[in-house]
Parts: sequence; C-alpha cells; structure tokens
Amino acid sequence: MSEVPASASQPWTAFEEIDFHAAAQRIASQILRTPLLRLPCDDPRIDLRGKMENLQVTGAFKARGACNNIAKLSPEERQRGVVASSSGNHGRALAWAAKQAGVAATIVMPKDAYPNKIEACRAEGAEVVLAEDRFDADVVTARLAAEGRVLIHPYDRDGTIEGAGTVGLEIAQAWPEVEVVVICVGGGGLSAGSSLALRRELGTRVRIFGAEPIGSASMRDGLAAGKPVVLEEITTQVQGLCPPQSGARNIAICASTLDGVFTPDDAIIFAAQRRLVRSEPGWQAQIVEPAGACAYSAVLSDMLPQSLLAGRTAQDPLRVAVTISGGNPDPAQLVAAQLD
Amino acid sequence: MSEVPASASQPWTAFEEIDFHAAAQRIASQILRTPLLRLPCDDPRIDLRGKMENLQVTGAFKARGACNNIAKLSPEERQRGVVASSSGNHGRALAWAAKQAGVAATIVMPKDAYPNKIEACRAEGAEVVLAEDRFDADVVTARLAAEGRVLIHPYDRDGTIEGAGTVGLEIAQAWPEVEVVVICVGGGGLSAGSSLALRRELGTRVRIFGAEPIGSASMRDGLAAGKPVVLEEITTQVQGLCPPQSGARNIAICASTLDGVFTPDDAIIFAAQRRLVRSEPGWQAQIVEPAGACAYSAVLSDMLPQSLLAGRTAQDPLRVAVTISGGNPDPAQLVAAQLD
Repeated sequence: MSEVPASASQPWTAFEEIDFHAAAQRIASQILRTPLLRLPCDDPRIDLRGKMENLQVTGAFKARGACNNIAKLSPEERQRGVVASSSGNHGRALAWAAKQAGVAATIVMPKDAYPNKIEACRAEGAEVVLAEDRFDADVVTARLAAEGRVLIHPYDRDGTIEGAGTVGLEIAQAWPEVEVVVICVGGGGLSAGSSLALRRELGTRVRIFGAEPIGSASMRDGLAAGKPVVLEEITTQVQGLCPPQSGARNIAICASTLDGVFTPDDAIIFAAQRRLVRSEPGWQAQIVEPAGACAYSAVLSDMLPQSLLAGRTAQDPLRVAVTISGGNPDPAQLVAAQLD
Repeated sequence: MSEVPASASQPWTAFEEIDFHAAAQRIASQILRTPLLRLPCDDPRIDLRGKMENLQVTGAFKARGACNNIAKLSPEERQRGVVASSSGNHGRALAWAAKQAGVAATIVMPKDAYPNKIEACRAEGAEVVLAEDRFDADVVTARLAAEGRVLIHPYDRDGTIEGAGTVGLEIAQAWPEVEVVVICVGGGGLSAGSSLALRRELGTRVRIFGAEPIGSASMRDGLAAGKPVVLEEITTQVQGLCPPQSGARNIAICASTLDGVFTPDDAIIFAAQRRLVRSEPGWQAQIVEPAGACAYSAVLSDMLPQSLLAGRTAQDPLRVAVTISGGNPDPAQLVAAQLD
C-alpha cells in the first residue's frame, strides 16, 4: 500500500460546493439503489460486502454522474448539447442520460475502441465521432466544446464527482457499521466522490483506500506529487482504469480523504473478476468487468494492513466494503473467465 | 391463455395457516431483498419490471422456502436432519440453509443431473445420494424420510409455499401500483405462495397469471382437473419447470388466486432468456437460466389478454411485474446464449 502524504492543501471538511444529498435526490428516479452483497472471501476475519454497481443502469456507476450532470444543465446548455471523450462506460452512460432528457450527445471515441462499446453508444442514441487515438479524441472533444457543446468530463468535474459520490453515500446509509471501504480508481471520480461522502457521513472512524492497477497508478503518483502526473507508460490490460492522468480536483479531494492506495497487478485483478463471474457456495455468479473487480482484488490478495485485522475473529470480523464498479466486459473475455 | 375454472374448493381468504409476514421476518437476515428492475419490452404500452430472484442467495427464490423450513424445525427435527429430492435449485438452497443452521442435509439427485448441480450441493455441505432416475430419487427420498430425516418438499409443503410467497409480498410492497403479475410455475411453490401473498396485499384489483412451458403444463392440467395430474410426457427442455405433477396444496391455492396460466413453448422461453443475458439500451445483461425467463417470455410474446391493454399508452402504460426466478444456467448453455 502507498500511504497518502500528509500534505493535503484542503481538509475534507472543505469542498462545500459538492452536495451528495442534493445529487442523490436529483438522480433518484433514474438510478438503481444497488444492493450491497456479501462477497466470497477466504479470510474468516473479514465480513466483505460489495456495492454492486455492475447492476447499475448502463452497467456502471457512471450513470450517476451522467444523470447528475445532465440534470444540472441550464436551459441554454441543454440546447447546446453535451460532448465527452470516452472509450467505455462514461460514454454509454452519458448517451443514455442525455437521451432520457432529450439532450443531444456526441461521444468521441478512439477508432480502436471495442466495437461493442461503440455500438452501445450509438444504440443509446448518441452521435459517435471516431478519432485516431485517445489523444486525438481529447483534441476533437475540445474542439467540439469550443464550438458550443458542453464538455462533461468523465471524472474531473464537480457534477461527475457529486454523482459518483452517491455510491459512497449509499454504502454509509446501508451499512453504517462499515469499518473499511476500498474504492476502484481510474481518473478519480468514484474515489474522490465516494471517499468524501463517506468521510462526511462516518467521519474518521472509517478507513478508506483506493485501488488502481499498478500498470496505471496515476492516483498514487498524483497524490505523491500533489498534482496530476502524466504516466510515461501504461502497462495494464485492465481497460477503464487507465486514463493518462488522474484529475486535479480528484487528487485534491483524495489527498484529504484517502488513507492509502493499493496497486494490484493485472493477474490479481483478472483472478478476482474470474471469481465473481462464477458461482460458489454462498455466492451467485454475476457479470463483472475486470476493472470492476479492482478494489475486491486488493482485499482478496491480502493487501489490507495487518494492523486492521489484529484481534479480529470470525465472531467479530472486520467489516469491509468494496465497490464493484462496472459490468460491461468484452463478451469474449467474459466467456473465457466463466469457463476456463 | 388457459382460464382457471371457477371451481375453487376454498376461497383465497382461506389458507390462514400460511403467514407470509411471519416468514419474511424469519428469513430476513439470510435473504436478499432483490431489486425490481425495468426489463426490455418492445410494447410501449407496458411498463415491465422483473423481480430479480436470479440475484438471490444460491441463485434462486428457493433459498426463501429453504430458510423458512429450516427455521421452523423443532429441536428434535433439527437433530434428525432434512432430506429432499432435487435435480436443481431446491437441493442447493436446502443444503445452504441447513448448513447455516448446523442441520445435516441429504439431497437425493438423479444420477444424470448436471455435474455442476451435483457439485454445488456437495460444495454447500450436503450429503448427495445418487439415484437411478427422477422416480427412483423419490423412492430413495421417501425411504430416508421413513428412517428419520425430515422431508422438505420442493413445493408441496406450507413452509415452502410460505417462504416462496415472500417474493410476491415484496413485489406488492415495492410496487403497490402494479396491475398485472406473471409468475413462473414449476410444481407451484412460487406461484401458489406469491399469488396468495399478492391477493392478500392488493386484493382483486391485481391480475395474476402463471407461466409454465407448454411441454410440461402440469399446473394448467391440474387446475382443469381440480387435482394433481401426472403428465404422460414431458417434452420441454426447460429444466427446473418440469416436475411430473404440480402439488395438491399448490393447485388448491392457485385455483383460488390465479386468473389464468400462460404456456409458452421452448423457443419463446429460450429467446427471452437470450435477451436478458445480453445488454441493450436501458438493460444491463444478467445471468438468468431459461426457466427463470418463463414468465417474462409470456409477456414478450404478447400473451397478455388484449383487453388489459385497451386504451393504454406510453404515457399511461400497463404496470406489469414478472418473476425472474433463477440464475443457475448450465455454463455452456449460458455462453451460447450470450454469444450466438
């Protein structure tokens, strides 16, 4: 585990412009309050539960931020429509939320994105613009925003953080006795939002950790530097958790809320996904993408600090929640994980 | 649709020894209150929602009856242990519930049951006895019961009906505005229990239908005869919905509660399962077995009486709930449904 440097420029009691309760109310009619399910865990000293956002509308927590952003648009912004660069779940979620509200959406995708992801955005009613690659996609997105579309950033935007944070809010409401929460980290939308919501609801008695692939540890590096760091190389195969950098706002929040960041490798993450997509005693198989199992993989592979487990027993287990953040695997990858 | 003859020997206000609220309280700590999700439906005049028991512990509503039966055992009965004949979800659920309570369980299975089903019962801690076939399994089960084990019938037992009926109770609580409910029918545990619970909660303003494969229409035939009818031939491939006959108690209840029975064919049922295991706009793929999609298939294939849809529009849709009753498909069958 990487410790978070004690150098946050703002305490977690700041960020007052972010209001999770207001966001929860704004999106309540469109969003599923996902169940918190007991997950397989071989350590009897841990009572492990998963917040099943793989069951969320559009297959990921991303629908929360998308709905919240769309609901906050002014009438003038609604006329202009929205744009985002995405190769995955944010694009699909934004397309869906925009269509529900009668707002035009353009999703800019790298041309080598999975065909099923591109098709999903089109099927949800968005205009899809294909770019040469991820960097070109950002350029095209910026141009469309300059021409009038409202840019809905996948993580570095308060409306996105606020929506994603309703995941943490729901965990605190459903299980106020929780002692440790581990949150999947990509660009930092879910981790910033949910960790801040958990701090506000439960204070400092809950330990909160992020988990990101060691092959794209942009939050770990960003926290160490105190600002976004562009990764020189991305070596993970875990799609959806590998933006070139974490967001500035996300790092500022996480610096004040997180106790540390776990960095499992790909083998650990894929093994955890494999476990969730197969049934075993006490666990019913579900459809989860590798990225969605990142936080779970950190617990499964014994990354929790041993100090937290000292003295805990099967009769008095440590109460740990993890986010299962997405359920849109590549179909062929899912089948391999189910059957191999 | 087959109408139910107006010849019920008891009205639905009878059956007072069955108490769904007591059962719900008894099993609350072990059972998941499953979500009621909006399902894909091409008819804009229908607001269709599924009670997702595929997400239930052990992958089917069967866990409810199993827990309820185990909780109701006397201390002396707990000592004797339980036995059931099952080739599928009831066996796994009973094994699981018994183990939770420290009660010994024997599951008698036909030796040609799916290897993964047999393995699942063993993995949950049950002793598995293999019989020559389904009929021999019933003989072996009866012998073990005569020797002392408490027989927990998969459907024809009040404790089973009471537990299964908490599905209907939860539908009524979560969506009291529901107008039509369609329930999957095998031996009649889920349909008798849930229809009776729905009648008690919502009265006669809700229309309630069963749905069973036309190749094993034992409830339709049992309702017509007013008693269990042993089917001469079972021609469906939809495992889990093809007992040789429906239960006597189940038929007595359903005669007083159901408005009719739909009998989709296998092609319709498999097509409905295929739709649920694949994502589409507004729907996130889930793991569902063919039997679990039987009620849904009846709605998808336009079996609802047209009179119920008269005058309904997208702005004022008919509110229909269906049970998605199980999520334990054969792994190879699931993969074929996901990818073909």
